Amino acid sequence: MPVPDFEAMWRELAPIGRSSSSGGYFRQPWESAELELRSWFREAATARGLEVEEDPFGNLVAWWGPAALTGRVLTGSHLDSVLDGGAYDGPLGVVSAFAALDLMREQGVVPTTRLGIAAFAEEEGSRFGRACLGSRLAVGATSWAEARELTDRDGVRLGDVVEGADAGPDGRTSTLLDGVGRYVELHVEQGRALVDRDAAVGVGSAIWPHGRFRYDVAGRADHAGTTRMEDRTDPMLTFAMTALAANKQARLSGQRATFGRVDVRPNGTNAVPSHVTAWLDARAESEGALNALIDAIERQARDRAGRDGTTVTVTPESVSGEVAFDAGLRDALAARLGGVPVLPTQAGHDAGILQAAGIPTAMLFVRNPSGVSHSPAESAELADCLAGATALAQVLTELVVEES
Amino acid sequence: MPVPDFEAMWRELAPIGRSSSSGGYFRQPWESAELELRSWFREAATARGLEVEEDPFGNLVAWWGPAALTGRVLTGSHLDSVLDGGAYDGPLGVVSAFAALDLMREQGVVPTTRLGIAAFAEEEGSRFGRACLGSRLAVGATSWAEARELTDRDGVRLGDVVEGADAGPDGRTSTLLDGVGRYVELHVEQGRALVDRDAAVGVGSAIWPHGRFRYDVAGRADHAGTTRMEDRTDPMLTFAMTALAANKQARLSGQRATFGRVDVRPNGTNAVPSHVTAWLDARAESEGALNALIDAIERQARDRAGRDGTTVTVTPESVSGEVAFDAGLRDALAARLGGVPVLPTQAGHDAGILQAAGIPTAMLFVRNPSGVSHSPAESAELADCLAGATALAQVLTELVVEES
Repeated sequence: MPVPDFEAMWRELAPIGRSSSSGGYFRQPWESAELELRSWFREAATARGLEVEEDPFGNLVAWWGPAALTGRVLTGSHLDSVLDGGAYDGPLGVVSAFAALDLMREQGVVPTTRLGIAAFAEEEGSRFGRACLGSRLAVGATSWAEARELTDRDGVRLGDVVEGADAGPDGRTSTLLDGVGRYVELHVEQGRALVDRDAAVGVGSAIWPHGRFRYDVAGRADHAGTTRMEDRTDPMLTFAMTALAANKQARLSGQRATFGRVDVRPNGTNAVPSHVTAWLDARAESEGALNALIDAIERQARDRAGRDGTTVTVTPESVSGEVAFDAGLRDALAARLGGVPVLPTQAGHDAGILQAAGIPTAMLFVRNPSGVSHSPAESAELADCLAGATALAQVLTELVVEES
Repeated sequence: MPVPDFEAMWRELAPIGRSSSSGGYFRQPWESAELELRSWFREAATARGLEVEEDPFGNLVAWWGPAALTGRVLTGSHLDSVLDGGAYDGPLGVVSAFAALDLMREQGVVPTTRLGIAAFAEEEGSRFGRACLGSRLAVGATSWAEARELTDRDGVRLGDVVEGADAGPDGRTSTLLDGVGRYVELHVEQGRALVDRDAAVGVGSAIWPHGRFRYDVAGRADHAGTTRMEDRTDPMLTFAMTALAANKQARLSGQRATFGRVDVRPNGTNAVPSHVTAWLDARAESEGALNALIDAIERQARDRAGRDGTTVTVTPESVSGEVAFDAGLRDALAARLGGVPVLPTQAGHDAGILQAAGIPTAMLFVRNPSGVSHSPAESAELADCLAGATALAQVLTELVVEES
């Protein structure tokens, strides 16, 4: 069955924030492309007669069904991207949510539980460095007092970008998710598991524990020509060895470790750097494995720093334990969809934040033929996207009727 | 003998372009701090009744003595700095030139050869990436057709910053150095040779061959969490190994190799990078040693790239052969100054460009207790600076009289 409007919505989003040189997307939160996506979200909601609610942190929900209904089921995802990211990571979940709603209406579904379509802010952490920042603030996992001091690469404070709100007497900071009893997030798959299993759609089982760790390596700036090699204190060497060590440790243990972001000071061709700051992204199948991985990397960084004469400071910027999605919901979805594959993900998602906050949550994944994500090469076939939206409509229908 | 005005001039320059956090200088060419230094130069010249001439590339010369005099002797240095550089590299030569002129006048010297004080543009290459760009353009070693297309980090073209000029029928692009028969550049020492020899001032013998080579390493962007280590094509690894290899090769051979500048795309914490661009600064005691060094580094980069699945493109951005300063002038200066040390430098200087262009050139070095340069820690004692300016006055007096 065709999903109305999916292709039309996808065409509307395609040019927003797209780099003509790389073909990738630059949709950093509260910058022009992402603000355009927010406007698109409001228009898509308004055109469908939905009521849009926004919390003080920039999280959006478009509600279907009268506010008087008891119970809330949420679906959706996010609209922001990593720097030079793909088209699907985030927006596929939002567009599929609208498409699923259209399909449910076409099928005559009348919700007895209110259905919300969410677009969470700053899921990627590409601007303020904190992944799932919007959903963390919405559930109170991150406090506004802490978050408002986060700064972007230009030194802009989050507190100067969104209104924010201190926690109320109950410790809550946002009422956006009040009464939400289930969350289902559809997301493009970011690996090859569905390709390997020859399936268009899968159900998520758990999110690997993962974290971001800032490595500040301090040395001493020197002239690159006149300073003898043995007189230097060069933080670039410490960083280089740490990046290689991270890769090797992750390979040996079957986990993941990446240094994808580096800032060098003064970053001049003819100067030995004074500082190198680099960010480690580490993920592992268990919390024990994650701790072993980050300990091994840090130990090798300190060993090398000792030889280079540099100093290393490691600051955890965000660390998330393992999140297992609600088992009942997971099994119900897999059964409803005819026994599709059930698989873990190594990527963090707002779904993980909501599940950890006690909201029974599930994820649907849509096959990605490239297996590549956070890259312009990320892809999904239209037929698989439509299968995803149809599957989402099926499970949401059950949820908004089941809970009536 | 006190050198009039040295300290006053130094105080005027001290705050311009200084970072209050690091104490270092940001005096990139044609940006606000460097433009302020140019204004200061014009005022210092005008206050002394000198005639200021500027060529289409932003090089400045303040002339002492009537234009009708035959013969030209030039002294000076540059006013720009590396990013977060020291106070002395460049400005010490310009301030010492004005101080030397004041001293010569006080001593009643009447030049029979015209004496010019030069401030060459973009000596450090910190903005448009080409070291000694101003002097290269002035002598025609770099063509305007090539230089005007150089861009800074913000994509601004040099051709949109300075007027420039195509070469005339004689292949020359600037008349600023017409008739210059000698050039003497005073510069803070950038190593420890004068400290080791317990001398305030030394004379330069030669500039090591050196070059800048841009390494473009291309891989494939991927999600840092979901992409298995064995499925990645990560250019950061190739860069990291290359940086370590460069350091090791230079240490083993007694030469210099540095990766001090790195640009990563997309530079996001949770993305395997698609591209890493890094700049190798390499210097060696001979051209043979330099070629062996850069070949060894490039070979190791390509070996690693083969294993990482990345591609490496190496582009020489500027390469300078060895420059031996004029032997007669060098010996005359050393003798005139009572047998001060004679030493090579590993740093490029405008003096090297002028010597290579056939203008007999000499350099004076002033002791730097820290031995550190291109860093806020670069230093010089006032007494040594005054000794330098006095020595410069001595040798210039001989040159402007000798050549009469």
